[in-house]
Amino acid sequence: MGGYKNRILRVNLSNRSFSEEPLSEALIHDYVGGRGFGARLLYDDLKPGADPLGEDNEIILIAGPLAGTNAQAFSRWIAFFKSPLTGGYFRSVCGGHLAAELKFAGFDGIIIRGTADSPVYLWIHDGQYELRDATYLWGLNCSDTHTLIREERHDPNIRIACIGPAGENKVRFAGIFSDRRAAGRGGGGAVMGAKKLKAIAVRGHEQVSLSRPEAFSKEVKTQVKANLAHPSYDVYSRRGRQNANLTNTLGMFPTRNFREGVLPGWESISSEAYGKLWVGRTACYKCMIRCGVLSKVEQGKYAGAWTEGPEYETIWVFTGPFLLTDIGLTIAADHLCDELGLDTISAGGTLGLCYELYERGIITSQDTSGLELTYGNGEPITELLRRIAYRQDFGDLLAEGSRLAAHAIGKGSEQFAMQVKGLEMPGYDPRGAKAHGLSLLTSVIGASHMIGYAVQELVPGRYSPNQTIDRFAVPGKGEMCQWNQDHMAWREVGLECGGLTSDDNYARLLATATGIDDFADTGYLEQVGERIYNLERMFNAREGFDHKDDAFPSRFIHQTLTEGPSAGQVFEIEPLLTDYYNARGWDVNTGNPTAAKLEELGLDFAKL
Amino acid sequence: MGGYKNRILRVNLSNRSFSEEPLSEALIHDYVGGRGFGARLLYDDLKPGADPLGEDNEIILIAGPLAGTNAQAFSRWIAFFKSPLTGGYFRSVCGGHLAAELKFAGFDGIIIRGTADSPVYLWIHDGQYELRDATYLWGLNCSDTHTLIREERHDPNIRIACIGPAGENKVRFAGIFSDRRAAGRGGGGAVMGAKKLKAIAVRGHEQVSLSRPEAFSKEVKTQVKANLAHPSYDVYSRRGRQNANLTNTLGMFPTRNFREGVLPGWESISSEAYGKLWVGRTACYKCMIRCGVLSKVEQGKYAGAWTEGPEYETIWVFTGPFLLTDIGLTIAADHLCDELGLDTISAGGTLGLCYELYERGIITSQDTSGLELTYGNGEPITELLRRIAYRQDFGDLLAEGSRLAAHAIGKGSEQFAMQVKGLEMPGYDPRGAKAHGLSLLTSVIGASHMIGYAVQELVPGRYSPNQTIDRFAVPGKGEMCQWNQDHMAWREVGLECGGLTSDDNYARLLATATGIDDFADTGYLEQVGERIYNLERMFNAREGFDHKDDAFPSRFIHQTLTEGPSAGQVFEIEPLLTDYYNARGWDVNTGNPTAAKLEELGLDFAKL
Repeated sequence: MGGYKNRILRVNLSNRSFSEEPLSEALIHDYVGGRGFGARLLYDDLKPGADPLGEDNEIILIAGPLAGTNAQAFSRWIAFFKSPLTGGYFRSVCGGHLAAELKFAGFDGIIIRGTADSPVYLWIHDGQYELRDATYLWGLNCSDTHTLIREERHDPNIRIACIGPAGENKVRFAGIFSDRRAAGRGGGGAVMGAKKLKAIAVRGHEQVSLSRPEAFSKEVKTQVKANLAHPSYDVYSRRGRQNANLTNTLGMFPTRNFREGVLPGWESISSEAYGKLWVGRTACYKCMIRCGVLSKVEQGKYAGAWTEGPEYETIWVFTGPFLLTDIGLTIAADHLCDELGLDTISAGGTLGLCYELYERGIITSQDTSGLELTYGNGEPITELLRRIAYRQDFGDLLAEGSRLAAHAIGKGSEQFAMQVKGLEMPGYDPRGAKAHGLSLLTSVIGASHMIGYAVQELVPGRYSPNQTIDRFAVPGKGEMCQWNQDHMAWREVGLECGGLTSDDNYARLLATATGIDDFADTGYLEQVGERIYNLERMFNAREGFDHKDDAFPSRFIHQTLTEGPSAGQVFEIEPLLTDYYNARGWDVNTGNPTAAKLEELGLDFAKL
Repeated sequence: MGGYKNRILRVNLSNRSFSEEPLSEALIHDYVGGRGFGARLLYDDLKPGADPLGEDNEIILIAGPLAGTNAQAFSRWIAFFKSPLTGGYFRSVCGGHLAAELKFAGFDGIIIRGTADSPVYLWIHDGQYELRDATYLWGLNCSDTHTLIREERHDPNIRIACIGPAGENKVRFAGIFSDRRAAGRGGGGAVMGAKKLKAIAVRGHEQVSLSRPEAFSKEVKTQVKANLAHPSYDVYSRRGRQNANLTNTLGMFPTRNFREGVLPGWESISSEAYGKLWVGRTACYKCMIRCGVLSKVEQGKYAGAWTEGPEYETIWVFTGPFLLTDIGLTIAADHLCDELGLDTISAGGTLGLCYELYERGIITSQDTSGLELTYGNGEPITELLRRIAYRQDFGDLLAEGSRLAAHAIGKGSEQFAMQVKGLEMPGYDPRGAKAHGLSLLTSVIGASHMIGYAVQELVPGRYSPNQTIDRFAVPGKGEMCQWNQDHMAWREVGLECGGLTSDDNYARLLATATGIDDFADTGYLEQVGERIYNLERMFNAREGFDHKDDAFPSRFIHQTLTEGPSAGQVFEIEPLLTDYYNARGWDVNTGNPTAAKLEELGLDFAKL
């Protein structure tokens, strides 16, 4: 079978033991790879109630079946764990070069459980592996960790996934970082930190074999040609990943902790404004899109600050929540999060909560050790990011994430924590796009924009020129949400990035690489996507999640947006949720898959 | 001829032109390499009175004849320029991998003059070269500059010498940095900054040929064996480069701006204390000594801070001047200097001046923007380092170095600037060792400990078991100083590092590599050393330097050390200087070489 290395490495940090196992035929056939593998493996391995920061949690890291091949934009990897932020299933995706290197080293994935008694890093090279002392790396930021591992091993080509001080200190929204890219969300960094696993370092020289190399090459050529012609190619490759223009003109750019939908002066943070700061370009392994940009600040307080990116979410999260339009601050804060090892969205979102609580007098400068969290004042932001990462004074509380921090603060704070299932909201007001909002609401990992991005609503005509979708309308949005969630799930089995490859092309790339004919059928893959999504939901159901957890902060339900192109909108939660559960074939009372649905998808084992 | 590539690259940044030239036979024969080449080339190329920060100054970078071979500890490079700190000749040496890489790329050296109209970096690869836009790198710290050039060129094995923000901002003691090692002293970074030259990046694949490979291999074997048996091998390889124990027990550890010679509580900064912070080891190209250590702070305010080193000078300069024994601060400050691109000795020395001026009330917290520079308070140090690098408020003045800063402050401050010829003093009180002190006083580059380190005084018996030298005595110290200065000069033609290789072995390594028999004769090399030193002195004489510039701060001459093993000592400047000039055969009135001495050394062309 091409594509796969047919080899998974299991590591138990508690007794420092290793084992290898092949991929079962059933796993490959029913789950294809990537997100499918991780969803099933995590479900099978974890007992309900496992402590996310305890030794029974796992970090599973999977490379896609096409990683390391010539397919474009297919070399992502994906981390799975029970989230310390949500208490539920989590998957977090990252680009870079690590996935290809893992395949070259002979593995499809790594499953790590247990807890080391002192800091270690996992060193995998050409089919071999060992745990090495990481005492010398403990405390270092992410870029230094990369540098020193490469120096210690005398090989600058080693690829690394690591945590920064935030992960070590078990900040609940610490991410996993690889060459300035991140599996940022959900607290995978905290899981690694709790395991005292500072990094995973990989180097290899094997090739990835292909079942039908000629047919595969033909599909790659088709892909390259189609990518060049795709409208998003130009956007990504010339402008990076920037949506501030779009969401502001839709009135969906969350401002002042989601109280408004347009940021005054947003033109200062437009794609055009960021374009002027670009100084370089980067790309992941075998990716012609090269969406990575290097930005550098030339003037003002943050002159000299630079970062890879920032992408839209980071731009938003360090502007809108604070009524700021300081482009320099966004870059400095992004870089700082990358070094400290923090997820920008949850970090900024948690600070956004604080600014509102400060305005309302629920917290004062006594709580913040003197920092004045007034709208328009960006000064405290970088300082608070540091305090969060090191859990210093007020930062220690914020390191718990907005939901737990608000709960600890009390005095009605909880309603101002803009999160779903504990995961902080991304930069889209759900009142402005109902299918997109439904996905934020119902997503298995909490308020992630990447679980079912309803591009049909946000960019009408992107996929179908004649398509007209009323983004405010309620009817039909349950089905649209379901379609997008399942579509994203099956696109994440191959771990394609950017969405420029057509579904047919994607399916044929998978089939020609692996030699498995079923994968050429998008209908088959759709069912795989639905299977994965339902299994993920059952992971959560097993932990006690149900209808009640598909909950929004009351602001979205009871307050209209007052200004801009989404003015007057609320999120009609009950009809939308009912429509969604029905579209899914789930029990509308529990909000979870029915026994019949599970049987239909071959998930009988997951019945509660 | 082996060893040499016989190819020097000349670059004119003003018109972005290049030329190549071979090494002349006379240059090779009379100057051998390294420091000899640079001293002669800089002398020939620069007109007297050239502005160190103007387009007529040059940066000359030379790799040694044995760089890139198997000889151990021979892969240093050396930078030459007219110093913006001293206004005179300067040479600054650095280890790492760049020298070997430059040879692999086909060059013995690079001579850069002119000024670019926008930031550039010089990219040299396998015999080719170009100036590339460095706008995207301008403003970045040193480690990021390394990372991004390697990424832009898609080659993690590129070797780099670069400047940080301090060099860009023309801080007069900004250094040139290569993988956390530095040609730190004298302001070479400011010269590069003034030229808008952010970095030199090199990659190559050529071999370095040898004239008598078998004989050379035999000499390398002799060298390796002798290194292992050398008493310093154990010291360097097990303890790094740390002298705090030695100088404190000699009463020569400069404390409170050279007012005392023993730091109370110095045991907290002993080699044993630093040894506990070691977390890794590094080495330069083909160096078995591996003196590079990685140190990391585990506890306290600076927990997580790390650095390569610190070496003795840095440990001293961030403790003694301020009455501090905070081991964490020394590591954090060292790392910060490496990133900002500052020479630690001059940076710390300039801050040492400020602490004394603050104590005396000559400056107050109004001058320092509120920082309280009281002895024992280490808080302001890292903040002031940042302000110096970015030339912010008080830092803008300090960026001029202690001599100019004291002159600007006035009110008698000049006497408290502990420098010679503008270069800040290293961590040895000259009152405690008269030959060593004489070298600090008379050195062609100002107060450098590396121009004529009188190890005979400081470590009696190191070279000769029965040697007993009275370090306080005056007689004979002129000759001892001269011998050490010339010895260092000829040991820097081959650019050996660490001094573990015997003179005979060193000479035969040079001779077998190059095929030039004269180099096997240490008597011949001694004359080369004297030639180089006299020529360097004439560079300065041409700029107006004479006897008056061999001057110490009055403290050393008129105040005794009051405590410790060097108590009661002053530096007897006039008899020592006269003795030195006589030993050199120089004019005792001008303090410069006589016409006869220049003729004797084949330096007629340098007569004034």
